[in-house]
Amino acid sequence: MSFSDFRTLNVDSLVEYIKTVPSLSSKLGNKLDGLTVKEVGDGNLNFVYIVIGSAGSLVIKQAVPYVRLIGESWPMTKERAYYEASSLKEHRRWCPDHVPEVYHFDRTMCLIGMRYLEPPHIILRKGLVAGIEYPLLADHMSEFMANTLFHTSLLFHSTTDHKRAVAEYCGNEGICRLTEQVVFSDPYKVSEHNRWTSPYLDAEAEAIREDNALKIEVAELKSKFCERAQALIHGDLHTSSVMVTSDSTQVIDSEFAFVGPMGYDVGAFLGNLILAYFAQDGHANATNDRKKYKEWILRTIEESWNLFHKKFIALWDKHKDGSGEAYLSAIYNNPELQNLIQNKYMEDLLHDTLGFGSAKMIRRIVGVAHVEDFESIADPGKRANCERRALHLAKLLLKERRKFKTIDQVVSVIRSADPSIQ
Amino acid sequence: MSFSDFRTLNVDSLVEYIKTVPSLSSKLGNKLDGLTVKEVGDGNLNFVYIVIGSAGSLVIKQAVPYVRLIGESWPMTKERAYYEASSLKEHRRWCPDHVPEVYHFDRTMCLIGMRYLEPPHIILRKGLVAGIEYPLLADHMSEFMANTLFHTSLLFHSTTDHKRAVAEYCGNEGICRLTEQVVFSDPYKVSEHNRWTSPYLDAEAEAIREDNALKIEVAELKSKFCERAQALIHGDLHTSSVMVTSDSTQVIDSEFAFVGPMGYDVGAFLGNLILAYFAQDGHANATNDRKKYKEWILRTIEESWNLFHKKFIALWDKHKDGSGEAYLSAIYNNPELQNLIQNKYMEDLLHDTLGFGSAKMIRRIVGVAHVEDFESIADPGKRANCERRALHLAKLLLKERRKFKTIDQVVSVIRSADPSIQ
Repeated sequence: MSFSDFRTLNVDSLVEYIKTVPSLSSKLGNKLDGLTVKEVGDGNLNFVYIVIGSAGSLVIKQAVPYVRLIGESWPMTKERAYYEASSLKEHRRWCPDHVPEVYHFDRTMCLIGMRYLEPPHIILRKGLVAGIEYPLLADHMSEFMANTLFHTSLLFHSTTDHKRAVAEYCGNEGICRLTEQVVFSDPYKVSEHNRWTSPYLDAEAEAIREDNALKIEVAELKSKFCERAQALIHGDLHTSSVMVTSDSTQVIDSEFAFVGPMGYDVGAFLGNLILAYFAQDGHANATNDRKKYKEWILRTIEESWNLFHKKFIALWDKHKDGSGEAYLSAIYNNPELQNLIQNKYMEDLLHDTLGFGSAKMIRRIVGVAHVEDFESIADPGKRANCERRALHLAKLLLKERRKFKTIDQVVSVIRSADPSIQ
Repeated sequence: MSFSDFRTLNVDSLVEYIKTVPSLSSKLGNKLDGLTVKEVGDGNLNFVYIVIGSAGSLVIKQAVPYVRLIGESWPMTKERAYYEASSLKEHRRWCPDHVPEVYHFDRTMCLIGMRYLEPPHIILRKGLVAGIEYPLLADHMSEFMANTLFHTSLLFHSTTDHKRAVAEYCGNEGICRLTEQVVFSDPYKVSEHNRWTSPYLDAEAEAIREDNALKIEVAELKSKFCERAQALIHGDLHTSSVMVTSDSTQVIDSEFAFVGPMGYDVGAFLGNLILAYFAQDGHANATNDRKKYKEWILRTIEESWNLFHKKFIALWDKHKDGSGEAYLSAIYNNPELQNLIQNKYMEDLLHDTLGFGSAKMIRRIVGVAHVEDFESIADPGKRANCERRALHLAKLLLKERRKFKTIDQVVSVIRSADPSIQ
């Protein structure tokens, strides 16, 4: 296949492009005059355009061959768009309520046309910074995680289907290498890309680089990330990859997808909720001390895991005589044994979740890419205090993850790491 | 690519085939009249021909689309020949002294032409049954395992190279499914293919099917086999996949190769040596009580692991600043830390080795494919006694594997499981 005709679009050429693609122009009711086109990509990698016409709307996302956050000096395969489109379709197959529809994919142009998530949809992270409660968030995200992870694992797949998926997503190796670098490597060594709230956290950043016990655990997580083909994971499931309203939750931006460890997805989501929690003191003011909101976040962490656990096990029970080749019902043939293996599976998954979630927290504080939760706290001293608490908790969770049996125990440790509620 | 021209060869058509292939006929000095051709395949899967002429020799191995041991009723992808040829070449690249040269590969015919391992080479398992000591075996096999496993892992590979290998060998999924079934599933359930020394071991076979703790551990091993892409493993490294003389050790029959857990290879080799150990009492007679030979086997188990450990670490040290992306030297940047991660890596690998090795032992006693070590003991009562001891040890090692720190401890447990040396 030839990628020789790739060109980066702009607002004008985008409209010309749409005119040539029936599956896109039809979504605009074929009324292509007077379209409003706005570039809104605020992520680290891509260009994203919202296209609104008199009879319809859509979003166009184009991958460019470098890391947008850094610039052309950091090349990055634009073929990630293919894996994003493929994984969006696969995840939507298993969870249509929480994954937007893909209208069009152009591999040459590395371009996806998809549903515009209309207002009042906002990026979840912005809602968390603003202190907005989403009563259905835990229910929806647990639905997404349980369905996408279960149905793309060997609990549901035959070995044949599983190996096919593994092989396909091996092609997304450029983006896997990016994760390996920015999540599992750079924060633990001197790197030109690292930054932190300086000078407040200088000693913290150095302590991480010198923490042998932490680096041994991070090596184990990195191995698991590189070697364990457990399910087709989203690969970047933080709170900016989720768009929400009070009754809708939509997961986007899956260009990091590959067949990897489930805990990397669940950990990304929970870890970013914990970051949001520790940022709240920085957003508190005279009219809102955010105490109630912090309780909502803790409840959401707890419910997200508990509902995920419940739904995942329900899917397992439903399909235990199905095509999945991991646990044959002729072997795991009594309720006691079935219960034992499910408990072990979920406990291992909780440990992975805590490990990966903590690694994701650490990298957002001392690595290249930071989060608005903290960045929007203007006072650097106040910001550093919030970040320090999150960092200490993350190191503790990462090192001690195997001691946790339930999410309640995790929430207790979060509470005890927060001096404002002692 | 078309496989439509595949046809199973016989002694006559094989000679006609060789005449059309210069890379084969040249190995016979182009003297193709009066060739001696003998079919010698005694494995479970393929046809193997030894071709000897007046000016050279070679071996032709052809895969057929079913499991030879069972017959055409058990179909099996013949494309395994491609993965055998590929892995032979890759393993020979890293360990030329112990992997025979491939002269020719024909993907359509699923046919490999390779070096004939001339007499006195015999299959190692036959040597073990005969009570022959191979003083260089531990040195050679540790060389093979350390070199092939290290150089095809992320300790040496970049992520890019590693994902490419993973994707390629995903195509060998038919053969991986066969292993999943015969090693990790059938022995733990009622299966028409299972057999054992009956009625002596009827209760033992049933106990395995009802041992919840064992089945939970086997599930974990199976997951690791299916999901963990650690290195390009041989995939079937038992003592019939090795040909030996007193000074040569050659590893053959790698059609089970894929990117999987290292411990599966090391465990296959050590597990089959343990089977050989427990079979010795069945081969003892008035002139040879085999006691001295049993000590040699124990020494070989110990040396194989210890030399493997030493050589693997030496390769790691040599390449620690190389292209391998698992442990960057900028992070694991002091001798103490380097030592800690290496010890952890090797201890985990020992646990995997004991787990997989034990699973391989169990399946050879109560599963479909048995081993000559025991099968050659004519008296079924005597045979069952040997098998029972091996089975008990395997169950113990499998369940308790995480408690072992060194191979000495394993050898001690083998001794204590052997009433004849109490």
